[in-house]
Amino acid sequence: MTQRKRPNRRETNKNPGKTAPSGNRGPRGPKKPHGPGQSPFIYGLHAVEAALQNPARTLHRLLATRNAWNEIESRLTAPARIEPEIVASEEISRALPPGAVHQGVALHLAPLPEPDLEDTTVNARRLLVLDQVTDPHNVGAILRSAAVFGAEAVVMTERNSPPLTGVLAKAASGAVEHVKVVKIGNLARALQELKNMGFLIAGLDGEADQTLGEIDVTRPVALVLGAEGAGLRRLTRETCDVLVKLPASGPMRSLNVSNAAAVALYELARPR
Amino acid sequence: MTQRKRPNRRETNKNPGKTAPSGNRGPRGPKKPHGPGQSPFIYGLHAVEAALQNPARTLHRLLATRNAWNEIESRLTAPARIEPEIVASEEISRALPPGAVHQGVALHLAPLPEPDLEDTTVNARRLLVLDQVTDPHNVGAILRSAAVFGAEAVVMTERNSPPLTGVLAKAASGAVEHVKVVKIGNLARALQELKNMGFLIAGLDGEADQTLGEIDVTRPVALVLGAEGAGLRRLTRETCDVLVKLPASGPMRSLNVSNAAAVALYELARPR
Repeated sequence: MTQRKRPNRRETNKNPGKTAPSGNRGPRGPKKPHGPGQSPFIYGLHAVEAALQNPARTLHRLLATRNAWNEIESRLTAPARIEPEIVASEEISRALPPGAVHQGVALHLAPLPEPDLEDTTVNARRLLVLDQVTDPHNVGAILRSAAVFGAEAVVMTERNSPPLTGVLAKAASGAVEHVKVVKIGNLARALQELKNMGFLIAGLDGEADQTLGEIDVTRPVALVLGAEGAGLRRLTRETCDVLVKLPASGPMRSLNVSNAAAVALYELARPR
Repeated sequence: MTQRKRPNRRETNKNPGKTAPSGNRGPRGPKKPHGPGQSPFIYGLHAVEAALQNPARTLHRLLATRNAWNEIESRLTAPARIEPEIVASEEISRALPPGAVHQGVALHLAPLPEPDLEDTTVNARRLLVLDQVTDPHNVGAILRSAAVFGAEAVVMTERNSPPLTGVLAKAASGAVEHVKVVKIGNLARALQELKNMGFLIAGLDGEADQTLGEIDVTRPVALVLGAEGAGLRRLTRETCDVLVKLPASGPMRSLNVSNAAAVALYELARPR
C-alpha cells in the first residue's frame, strides 16, 4: 500500500455490488451506482495473492483449484483470512464472465474504500490522470506501472472508467491493492483542484512542442493521458499547465496508451 | 520501412498460409511450417492502412464497410493497389477468428519477405530480442514501441512466437510494416552471432544489480526480454553480456512485458 497521509473518512463497503455509502464527497456530489457489467470477482494468481495480502479488503468467497491454492498459499506472508473452496477449474469459469483467464483462482470481495481526491493527493509527488481511457487491459497495465514507478494515485472519471475487478485487476497484477484509484465526476474541475494544490498539470500530446524531459521534475506532477486516437478532450487540454510529448525517433509517433504511461512515469522517476 | 542495408536474398511468399520457400538460411536450417492457427488477415484501421501503404506487400483481398473505407482512403498518400469489396461488418466478422476487433476492415495479404539476421542487423543500433514472449497483444505492442523509439528489428524464435497477422498486427497498429521481424531457430546461437557483430547483449532481469541507464549506450545494443513470470531462460541469461533492471521506486517490481520493452527502448533512445 502507498502510505496514507491522513485518516480516511470512508468505511469499507460491506455490501459488494452496491456502491459505497456516500460520505463527504466535497464539491462533486454523491456517487452514481456502478454499471451492471461489474463482476465482484478478482481472479488470477498475482491479483488474488495481492488482495489476500491486503488487510483493507473484506473477503467473501475464495474459489481455487488445489494447484493454484498451493501456489498462492506458499507465497502468503500471513495465514489467509478466508478458507478456500477447492473446486475444479470449470467451476471457477462458470462463476466468471466468459473468457476470464483465472489461472485457477477467483476471489469475491468488497471494493476498497473510495478515496477522496484531496486526501489522497495532498502529499503525493506523482499522479496519473486518465481522460476517457476505457480499455480495462490498458487501465490495469497503467496501475501496474504506477505501482512500479511510485505514482501514488490514478485519477479517472466515474463515467467511462472500467470496474476495478475482473480484466482490469488481472492486468494490474495486484496493483489495485497498492495504487489509490480516485474516481471523480468532472475531470476539468479535478485538474483545477490539483493545480490549486500545487501540481504541475502536464498533458501528454504527440503534437506538443516540448518533451516530458524538459519540465521541472522537482515539482509534484499530475500527468494527464487521453484515449488512443481521440487524445485529450478540448477542455482537458485547455486546463493543463503544459503539453508535452515523448521523443519519438522512429517511423511511428504513437504508443499504446499503457506504454506511453509507463514511459512517462519512468521519465519522471528515473535517477538523475 | 526501416532502410534495408543489403539486397534481400529471399522472395516474397506469394502463397499465403504456406511458408516462404526456404532460401539460404545460413546455419539455422529450413523453416518449419507455421501452426494451423495463423489467419492470413490483417484487420483494424491503422494496421490495414499501414499495410496498404507498404509497397512490399502483395495484396489479395480487401473487405471493408463503407465508413471504414472512407476513413482509410482519406489517409492514403497514394491510390490503393487493390479495390475494396464494400460489405457489411458482419461479413468481415465471419471471415475472421471469433472476437476479432476489425473496425470494419480486413485485408488478406501475403507475408513480408522473412529477413535474415545478419542482413537485417549489420548496421542496426537497437534490437529487441524476445525469449518466449508468446502473447500476441504484448508482441504487437512491443513492435509498436520499437517503431516509435527507432529499434530496427525484433528478433524472436520461430517456435513459440505468434503469427504476424491478426491480434498481433492489430496491437502493432501498423508497426509490422515498419519494424523487421527476424525469426530464428536457436536464440542462444543468434545472440552469439549478434555478439560477434559487435552488439552489447543486455538482458532485462528484475534481479540484476545494474540499471539499464548505466550501460554504454553509444554501442549497438540488443535488449533481451523474457516472458512474464518465467523471465529469461538459463542459456539466454548466460549468453548475455550484462543483466540490467529498470529502476523501480514503488511497491511493485515487475512491469507488463510490453511496458518494460517500451521503457527500456525509451531509455536507450532518449536525448542525453
